[in-house]
Amino acid sequence: MDAFEYIGFAAAILTTAAFLPQVFKTWKTKDVSGLSLPMLVMFFVGVALWLVYALFIDSPSMIAANAITLGSAFLLIYFKLSYN
Amino acid sequence: MDAFEYIGFAAAILTTAAFLPQVFKTWKTKDVSGLSLPMLVMFFVGVALWLVYALFIDSPSMIAANAITLGSAFLLIYFKLSYN
Repeated sequence: MDAFEYIGFAAAILTTAAFLPQVFKTWKTKDVSGLSLPMLVMFFVGVALWLVYALFIDSPSMIAANAITLGSAFLLIYFKLSYN
Repeated sequence: MDAFEYIGFAAAILTTAAFLPQVFKTWKTKDVSGLSLPMLVMFFVGVALWLVYALFIDSPSMIAANAITLGSAFLLIYFKLSYN
């Protein structure tokens, strides 16, 4: 593994971990009033494109980070549609 | 420019655009109660590491996206500390 992949994985852990409390909070409180569906969909598509990009450049840390974040964004969209 | 950089820039536009309304809303309402400082700092450091990673792999779209998001995260930290 390239040395800078360690930087990528540290980045992946920090940015995905910062996002998870939002998913957990929304799941627990079922409060989706502050979440905008168009914004969530935009974010979801953006992360999906980053994942495609990461596969193109073959970056393990980016693939991991964007796969997890894509799952989180999907859950938020699901919550938004279910709890509304 | 490599063809997949277009995918990267599309991803960059979508994910940074999805983040900007939060910055604008916080600036306008001065309501920082829902923002967690440790989480913001974690996110800021994570994005800074992505930026370092992007410079290493020389990815124009990632450099652009993470530079803008780093600025947004910095503003949110500044708002959190100022308006608290």
